[in-house]
Amino acid sequence: MSTDPHPWAVALGTLYAQAWQRLIRGVHDRHTPARHPTLATVSPEGMPQARTVVLRGADPARGRLEIHTNLHSSKITDLGARPVAALHVWDSGQKLQIRLQAEVEVLTGPQAATAWSRVPEGSRTAYSAHAPGSPLGDALAWDRQPDPAAFAVLHLHIQAMDLLHLGPDHRRAVYTRAQHWVGQWVVP
Amino acid sequence: MSTDPHPWAVALGTLYAQAWQRLIRGVHDRHTPARHPTLATVSPEGMPQARTVVLRGADPARGRLEIHTNLHSSKITDLGARPVAALHVWDSGQKLQIRLQAEVEVLTGPQAATAWSRVPEGSRTAYSAHAPGSPLGDALAWDRQPDPAAFAVLHLHIQAMDLLHLGPDHRRAVYTRAQHWVGQWVVP
Repeated sequence: MSTDPHPWAVALGTLYAQAWQRLIRGVHDRHTPARHPTLATVSPEGMPQARTVVLRGADPARGRLEIHTNLHSSKITDLGARPVAALHVWDSGQKLQIRLQAEVEVLTGPQAATAWSRVPEGSRTAYSAHAPGSPLGDALAWDRQPDPAAFAVLHLHIQAMDLLHLGPDHRRAVYTRAQHWVGQWVVP
Repeated sequence: MSTDPHPWAVALGTLYAQAWQRLIRGVHDRHTPARHPTLATVSPEGMPQARTVVLRGADPARGRLEIHTNLHSSKITDLGARPVAALHVWDSGQKLQIRLQAEVEVLTGPQAATAWSRVPEGSRTAYSAHAPGSPLGDALAWDRQPDPAAFAVLHLHIQAMDLLHLGPDHRRAVYTRAQHWVGQWVVP
């Protein structure tokens, strides 16, 4: 009996739904690939920058993702110059690559207070006033004092989604907000 | 008995050596994370772009990595405008994030002939004249005819390496070609 492990890949609608399902799963399950996407930005000097982030929210109705970061990190500097980002997930179990283009909104202070109140105590050391990337004389001599003012929420308003499935036949489709996420097959 | 699973993370030199070891392993072992890094570039419009690539070569002495791509892909357009890239690996087993900044050299034709001769027959369909990303009426109606003229080798000349190890204590260090890869601890 021949079976297709990924029947959702053959139609534009089900492929799109599967990508959102994996993103939502990533928010809730730390052991799935979408939990730790790669976020790419452009530095003020025009250099591409990429780093792992933790996916904190996924809202398919709004086409929006949520990420938390230290306000003193270089990605905030990048986003100040160009408020756009690419988000990338390679889900090896599903053989699915998810590539997103997004406009990024940075929320701080009162706008981020509710999210801050839900950050576990042990995770708050990531949000200190000591800027990530600052030089240190000793590897461990960094400030772990949590500072709510260093906490920022990123809202990624997705503009385009590029999905690639590697199966017996490769399939790739692009979906845009402008085209109401209808989808278009493209060459893989 | 308390043991440190990653003793290499505590010194600048061993941390650097470990990152290279993982990159080299990625070239030879398709089941390790460094086999499939994320490559970030900047589009001519200034948008960050990120996609999975396959690591084909790693040369620590030269500080150089090798990747193969279709000459008609959008990453080549990006590199034509700005010949720079970021490469990202999250090695979950080692709890090690590898972030590279590189200048990129694109080799084609006779310069890529030796590499082309080593591409397995079954992998050559990725290098057709049908540009990846072109719209298709049918998902599978793409040209699979190999075209040696569509084959390009990317040489990533690494300029900086940013390594982050997540252990009982987090450690992060930056190494640059300009500073002869000596390394500098920074705030994680």
